[in-house]
Amino acid sequence: MSGEGNAGYGRKKFKRSRSHFADRVTADGRDGWPVEPGRYRLVISRACPWASRAAVSRRLLGLEDVVSLAVADPVQDDRSWRFTLDPDGRDPVLGIAFLHEAYDRRERDHPGGVSVPALVDVPSGKLVTNDFHRLTLDFATEWTAHHREGAPDLYPRALRAEIDEVMEDVYQDVNNGVYRAGFATTQDEYEEACRAVFARLERLAERLEGQRYLVGDTITEADIRLFTTLVRFDPVYHGHFKCNRWKLAENEVLWAYARDLYQTPGFGDTVDFDHIKRHYYTVHTGINPTAVVPVGPDLAGWLAPHGRERLGGRPFGDGTPPGPVPPGEEVPATGRPTAA
Amino acid sequence: MSGEGNAGYGRKKFKRSRSHFADRVTADGRDGWPVEPGRYRLVISRACPWASRAAVSRRLLGLEDVVSLAVADPVQDDRSWRFTLDPDGRDPVLGIAFLHEAYDRRERDHPGGVSVPALVDVPSGKLVTNDFHRLTLDFATEWTAHHREGAPDLYPRALRAEIDEVMEDVYQDVNNGVYRAGFATTQDEYEEACRAVFARLERLAERLEGQRYLVGDTITEADIRLFTTLVRFDPVYHGHFKCNRWKLAENEVLWAYARDLYQTPGFGDTVDFDHIKRHYYTVHTGINPTAVVPVGPDLAGWLAPHGRERLGGRPFGDGTPPGPVPPGEEVPATGRPTAA
Repeated sequence: MSGEGNAGYGRKKFKRSRSHFADRVTADGRDGWPVEPGRYRLVISRACPWASRAAVSRRLLGLEDVVSLAVADPVQDDRSWRFTLDPDGRDPVLGIAFLHEAYDRRERDHPGGVSVPALVDVPSGKLVTNDFHRLTLDFATEWTAHHREGAPDLYPRALRAEIDEVMEDVYQDVNNGVYRAGFATTQDEYEEACRAVFARLERLAERLEGQRYLVGDTITEADIRLFTTLVRFDPVYHGHFKCNRWKLAENEVLWAYARDLYQTPGFGDTVDFDHIKRHYYTVHTGINPTAVVPVGPDLAGWLAPHGRERLGGRPFGDGTPPGPVPPGEEVPATGRPTAA
Repeated sequence: MSGEGNAGYGRKKFKRSRSHFADRVTADGRDGWPVEPGRYRLVISRACPWASRAAVSRRLLGLEDVVSLAVADPVQDDRSWRFTLDPDGRDPVLGIAFLHEAYDRRERDHPGGVSVPALVDVPSGKLVTNDFHRLTLDFATEWTAHHREGAPDLYPRALRAEIDEVMEDVYQDVNNGVYRAGFATTQDEYEEACRAVFARLERLAERLEGQRYLVGDTITEADIRLFTTLVRFDPVYHGHFKCNRWKLAENEVLWAYARDLYQTPGFGDTVDFDHIKRHYYTVHTGINPTAVVPVGPDLAGWLAPHGRERLGGRPFGDGTPPGPVPPGEEVPATGRPTAA
């Protein structure tokens, strides 16, 4: 993921790098990468919150038949993300064993690490972009000709200023804030980050107490970005990253909000708790030297009624929920909660 | 504490050693150490659950004027427990800077580490015992002539078989179980320990659902021993030792039981959450290399009403609660919860 690939957590203060490859796939193809069904392959790890944004977005918009999906092993080795989950250890479409091969084809000796999400041009095998901030916005706005019928508008023009503002706060204090807390090497740096995480979460809880979604009355990109952090909160960030003032499950509003989204088609069906836990706890040996993966927390609660329908809201606006997960993309039972 | 002093957590499976010094201070003085007011000094760390048993027991029985108390710095250095909290870094009664000096006076080159609780003979400066299993039972049964008026019977003869049985289960699966989970170096070893912790806690919750205390209808030694682990559960064992199926605060029965005891004079007034957290998170660099101490969890809940009076029970039997904490022994505000 972009956290592990682009930034270390050594003695220096944790700082997330901007993506090096920031070409855009657009309807007009101005960067040389036109929107074209079947041409691009989205490489994700289900462990990674930044990549998971793209997985959710792709599902909600119904781009599954248009942009194919490769799921990397949640545990990288020293060559970074690898396709060890696939037969013969190679991605069946790109034919590569390691994601770095697509990076190398694009640019030899590129600076920065190998991160997901990565959009790869299938014909050339070259990486197009690993810009996780832009990728989902382009799914929402450049790929509209190929959205499924009933797809929601995840980045509605009239609300973009507000969505951008919310997303920026969520990014600084929550999405990236948990990493700053977890990778802090000094007490002060950690405490500052951890306090910012919870201060922001408390403000978000106030906002979400009376409205079902973050902006407007439908699901937007802002909800996707908050969700991908919240779904990792108790399994990983609470313990591993020491964001432990309270568990998500102890905050009534945010816990119900997160469950609401989890139970919405396109969100929970992309989440693999097993991948999430194994990635963080085994890869970050700098903060978990034993690489032991906790058995908790109990996940059954994710399936409990959330009661947020009472707030109104129209999840998909004038649209409809996505259909079932395409065959072959289902999250295995090991990654899903079982009812209590 | 006995965990750090007597046992390592290297490549081998974690195993807690028995205390090397197991002399007893008795009413008849048969080991050469007769009960005698003012003669012995109890050395504890408020971080350590084994030592904290003795601190609670001493308070409940009113032995404060009879057995004096030394509180070690929660953070050991490579010479183990030290009196760096005291003026000039020396215990004012024993005149030593390190607890190992009392051990050395007793036996040169003794095997095993330096652990608390330690009972030290003030005239000779020699360690008498570090047997944390026996120490509190002897406080309860050998020191009766010096108990305060209204002291409870913490180890009533008629209930000893049942108390011993409960304490053995609690010791194996809970008191020591959390250490086995936390110091595990393999996934299997960890999972086995963690499952045993929660299986036992669930059985204890069933037992405590309908009765206020573990055995009989009054506080006994069994409650003291369960309490000292429960009070550390969310601040330390949940995250640091990965005992994270659920927080204590998520288990209605055990959380109310722990709060009930915490709010009982003699229990909570011995607890220093700051010492507890700083000890574990800074000393165990093998599992927390950054030595960053989490800011959470919120502690205000410890002061919330517990509602367990409805179960009946007579906390002190025919006796009464202990009076205020003696001057000089108060836990500082940094170690106590503040109301929400």
